[in-house]
Amino acid sequence: MLVVMDSHATPEQVDEVVRAIRAMNLAAHPMPGATRTAIGITGNVGAVDPRTLEVLPGVLELIRVTKPFKLASREMHEADTVVRTPQTVIGPGTFTLIAGPCSVENEDMILRTAEYLMGRGVRLLRAGAFKPRTSPYSFQGMGLEGLKILEKARKKTGIGIVTELMDTDNAGAVEDAADVIQIGTRNMQNFSLLKRVAKARKPVLLKRGMAATLEEWLMAAEYVMAGGNYQVILCERGVRTFNDHSRNTLDLSVIPPAKKLSHLPILVDPSHGTGKRDYVPPMALAALAAGADGLLLEVHPDPEHAQSDGAQSLSFPGFEKLLEGLRGLAGPLQKQIQ
Amino acid sequence: MLVVMDSHATPEQVDEVVRAIRAMNLAAHPMPGATRTAIGITGNVGAVDPRTLEVLPGVLELIRVTKPFKLASREMHEADTVVRTPQTVIGPGTFTLIAGPCSVENEDMILRTAEYLMGRGVRLLRAGAFKPRTSPYSFQGMGLEGLKILEKARKKTGIGIVTELMDTDNAGAVEDAADVIQIGTRNMQNFSLLKRVAKARKPVLLKRGMAATLEEWLMAAEYVMAGGNYQVILCERGVRTFNDHSRNTLDLSVIPPAKKLSHLPILVDPSHGTGKRDYVPPMALAALAAGADGLLLEVHPDPEHAQSDGAQSLSFPGFEKLLEGLRGLAGPLQKQIQ
Amino acid sequence: MLVVMDSHATPEQVDEVVRAIRAMNLAAHPMPGATRTAIGITGNVGAVDPRTLEVLPGVLELIRVTKPFKLASREMHEADTVVRTPQTVIGPGTFTLIAGPCSVENEDMILRTAEYLMGRGVRLLRAGAFKPRTSPYSFQGMGLEGLKILEKARKKTGIGIVTELMDTDNAGAVEDAADVIQIGTRNMQNFSLLKRVAKARKPVLLKRGMAATLEEWLMAAEYVMAGGNYQVILCERGVRTFNDHSRNTLDLSVIPPAKKLSHLPILVDPSHGTGKRDYVPPMALAALAAGADGLLLEVHPDPEHAQSDGAQSLSFPGFEKLLEGLRGLAGPLQKQIQ
Amino acid sequence: MLVVMDSHATPEQVDEVVRAIRAMNLAAHPMPGATRTAIGITGNVGAVDPRTLEVLPGVLELIRVTKPFKLASREMHEADTVVRTPQTVIGPGTFTLIAGPCSVENEDMILRTAEYLMGRGVRLLRAGAFKPRTSPYSFQGMGLEGLKILEKARKKTGIGIVTELMDTDNAGAVEDAADVIQIGTRNMQNFSLLKRVAKARKPVLLKRGMAATLEEWLMAAEYVMAGGNYQVILCERGVRTFNDHSRNTLDLSVIPPAKKLSHLPILVDPSHGTGKRDYVPPMALAALAAGADGLLLEVHPDPEHAQSDGAQSLSFPGFEKLLEGLRGLAGPLQKQIQ
Repeated sequence: MLVVMDSHATPEQVDEVVRAIRAMNLAAHPMPGATRTAIGITGNVGAVDPRTLEVLPGVLELIRVTKPFKLASREMHEADTVVRTPQTVIGPGTFTLIAGPCSVENEDMILRTAEYLMGRGVRLLRAGAFKPRTSPYSFQGMGLEGLKILEKARKKTGIGIVTELMDTDNAGAVEDAADVIQIGTRNMQNFSLLKRVAKARKPVLLKRGMAATLEEWLMAAEYVMAGGNYQVILCERGVRTFNDHSRNTLDLSVIPPAKKLSHLPILVDPSHGTGKRDYVPPMALAALAAGADGLLLEVHPDPEHAQSDGAQSLSFPGFEKLLEGLRGLAGPLQKQIQ
Repeated sequence: MLVVMDSHATPEQVDEVVRAIRAMNLAAHPMPGATRTAIGITGNVGAVDPRTLEVLPGVLELIRVTKPFKLASREMHEADTVVRTPQTVIGPGTFTLIAGPCSVENEDMILRTAEYLMGRGVRLLRAGAFKPRTSPYSFQGMGLEGLKILEKARKKTGIGIVTELMDTDNAGAVEDAADVIQIGTRNMQNFSLLKRVAKARKPVLLKRGMAATLEEWLMAAEYVMAGGNYQVILCERGVRTFNDHSRNTLDLSVIPPAKKLSHLPILVDPSHGTGKRDYVPPMALAALAAGADGLLLEVHPDPEHAQSDGAQSLSFPGFEKLLEGLRGLAGPLQKQIQ
Repeated sequence: MLVVMDSHATPEQVDEVVRAIRAMNLAAHPMPGATRTAIGITGNVGAVDPRTLEVLPGVLELIRVTKPFKLASREMHEADTVVRTPQTVIGPGTFTLIAGPCSVENEDMILRTAEYLMGRGVRLLRAGAFKPRTSPYSFQGMGLEGLKILEKARKKTGIGIVTELMDTDNAGAVEDAADVIQIGTRNMQNFSLLKRVAKARKPVLLKRGMAATLEEWLMAAEYVMAGGNYQVILCERGVRTFNDHSRNTLDLSVIPPAKKLSHLPILVDPSHGTGKRDYVPPMALAALAAGADGLLLEVHPDPEHAQSDGAQSLSFPGFEKLLEGLRGLAGPLQKQIQ
Repeated sequence: MLVVMDSHATPEQVDEVVRAIRAMNLAAHPMPGATRTAIGITGNVGAVDPRTLEVLPGVLELIRVTKPFKLASREMHEADTVVRTPQTVIGPGTFTLIAGPCSVENEDMILRTAEYLMGRGVRLLRAGAFKPRTSPYSFQGMGLEGLKILEKARKKTGIGIVTELMDTDNAGAVEDAADVIQIGTRNMQNFSLLKRVAKARKPVLLKRGMAATLEEWLMAAEYVMAGGNYQVILCERGVRTFNDHSRNTLDLSVIPPAKKLSHLPILVDPSHGTGKRDYVPPMALAALAAGADGLLLEVHPDPEHAQSDGAQSLSFPGFEKLLEGLRGLAGPLQKQIQ
């Protein structure tokens, strides 16, 4: 950490800051400069709230140097994390597709989708039984009944289940039904929920919050890991910016920095990211090229009559065409589509 | 709602859209124009997912006209809502101060603060027993013990309690302890939590999400109201933008549109909004001038040693000076500070 | 400046960075810490491009400490700048109104407006002869003829003229006609234009760019000041964020940090900031309360028939009512409306 | 266009709006609905300023339907535009690389770079003679002398020149020296400059403004095209968001909507977009996969000693490796790298 003094700060004020730093059992390194003094701080900085120094007289600002995440950071753990489910793996060398409808609508459409996907080599089905909806008047999902349909689909087809958990009340049921527990964008900083899935024995797919910085996202992952669950998958799904050309701004540019700072696998959800079916395939290909470890895709047997998000869902033929495109790029990029 | 057709759309495509609209039991009003046709839709539009029309051939885009919130809207309820606690009211003609430390640190500091505030005419104390913190390694609040301290402070001083609820597990305890239940910015779209406080018998202070549009914010209020709790207070606390001059961008400009679209009272939290003690007083005065109904302020007996957010907390003398400034403006603005 | 080394950086890599710093004639202060080494840099840092250090092996990141603006900074010049025109002053203790139509439409409406404003004590008229319009098919302003009308208005009424300069070609004509030369938001980083007005003998009103940080804005002011023109007025007019409740997001929260970092006066333009007439008065009052030095306001004798921006222009009675509101607050805030 | 009336609007207010629409020689289509009336407008809407209707009593809001760009729109011109220079083409089926240093530093480095690039099949050199710099104290480019060096490089090696024009004063010189005239991000809405290059006989590369919506960007292209120059290339270079993981947020998600709305070719500049050399290759590959027509890349013979932007420049070996990666993907994507 670095304390930057005002250019008019007196030597006494500098001394006082040095004393305050030492009172925290940290080392202070004053550096007098041409126009001002800066004071470096070393020691176990994580334990103190730096902002208390900021209010001392003569202090201009406080600059944090150390990143606050540990378990999620590549500095602590150099090798890429591999996330395992009974059906597949997510991590280096592979490009994993998780596909399916926005929500569980009935047994028939889930079974049809699961069979279709397994036939194309896709090993993970996504579908929501609990749906976070902006409006209280919109369809809120089938709930526990939806979970049962998903379990039936796994039993019948062998496909793995990725489904969202919205609250601690349903944590046990979702943990039982899911192979991967999804935490949605609106819950990325629902810390009570993060602490709960930290105790789960299933991997966690952590969607990026709509306005989360990379650091905040990794800190949310840190919550899960600090509680003992190291199987965390990041998922970029579009952020909130001034742009109005798409539903959200799909931020593929976060992939290289995420890979640099963290060892966790990162997926991309171009369906929510763009909100428009036509824009999904180019963004899916771009995600692969940018270094993502896989995709979360909305695929629906009959998008025109979907109960939610039909406009961003691919039909089966649309998915098939995208799959072909992904296969064309996977070879040169040394990734195995699965 | 309005369906805008592509300029190359055929008459058959227009007909098909008209048929699809009628199949939803809505009325279609085609308007052929110079370069394209648009089709107006009237009827009970709220019940359909407009985006299914968007995928029909020849459709360029779909424009929603009706606002999706009802109970929260001024069109449905013209008069300003007045929120009542046993200690005070929040609403037209008043400017209500809610002040106190970021978190409950111990009994002594809460009692000192409560007594101090009551002595200055402030009737509501804010302090967190459960703290949402970006890092799992930061102080997470005193929990249930903190709630007990708050209840003791009310008993001793008569001050009302505003405190945050983070999860349904602690809903009963917070509902018992609080006079106003606070929903934090990170939980604005925690729909399970919103549904829970919709059943509470205490008013809800709903902080704006860090990247929430006004419409999304009012839809979150709608969740609470649709569940039966009409005592909702909005609270602007800064949004996430490209700005780096403050911790967040305090969006005072949302106040006039919020007042136009909704009848709910709106408070401003300049402490979180700016993140810097020095910036709090000018923003607090500006909030009053912009038409807010009150403030949520961090005030601490000893900010230099606060366990969290010390840098943005006012000291008692700092609060006193601000109070004086607010009183100077309240008269000309026909507001009663309380 | 501070160089932060990777936690895996070798002692040799640290040495190399130290050598590179010294080769730039700067002093290096290595601070070995628990997990990594940071290296402070002191000396005349402004002259080097810090990012060249960033590419050295073992460097994690580079943190700039010194602000890059000098002449615009309060550290260099503590007293508030007072900007003077023949008609009035802008600076501490005063709250200066600059009002008028978006564009010069004809002589009659300019004269009517000028006379009206002078009758209410407003000493500066704003009106564009050259108009930056998003569409090439929109009215682009009356040009040189518009400037003549403005000069006539000054001659007849004594009012001062604030008008926009869009390019160096018309710099001489605008400099002659104007008492204050306005640089629009889209030209805030038109450095050729900034260098030209740096040579002008008239004050410059510098609107904030739509996505400009405070630092970039002050650096734009620095361009003008570095060229010899110290009479610079900042003007906040709304920035681009995810918000859709107003035309732009009027960022009143920039006022306290701007006042802290710089000695230049700052005005607020609530007309462009909100884009809606109804939202102008509350934001105007809030700007006064937040510490602004004045307002730039769109006022039109007949807003319903304005050639541009009618929807955000106040009528004369609307302006009159606002003026009354401002006068009510000016006393307690120790500002003189003018 | 659509006028949405307030739910409390009276029939007289609706009539008044209808009359106002007809007075503009447009057709009005009132649609009475369950809670409110909406009024469709058809006719030559482009000619009127819709916002004047917004201020009529009883009007809630005004919704624009027609896009304001014409010449730049795919609706008017279905086939993809091909931009031609003497050395190459930019458009469908090709993926064109424009590479070179941020700024012209001296003759030797430009010649070395030009020869190197021609040897790898790159036909266009980018390098700035005039440099827009945030600080007036930074290197501002070699100016006219720089242009001469670029012309010499073309003469010697046959490479085409892409270089930035910052103001109308140097328009003639840049037009003579360049094969493609670059308009920088800060000048995207410098309308005087756009009108000038609309008269140029060379193609224009139009960088997206840092906070420009797709519509504003296409309207800037419309300025150039409306003036008679149809050879416009769009270039995405990162936008301003809350993200801090990169220098800007490279918005690859704008490519599919840009391709849908417009026929103009679109390039991507991952060097400015990310600001970090390490992040350039994955973003370059992703741009190709997302459907871009080429790249603008910073390549420098000695990035560690570049006078500007060294940290984001690729070295020759770095460029070579990227080229190989691009070639691997171009085949499956049916693009010809050039």
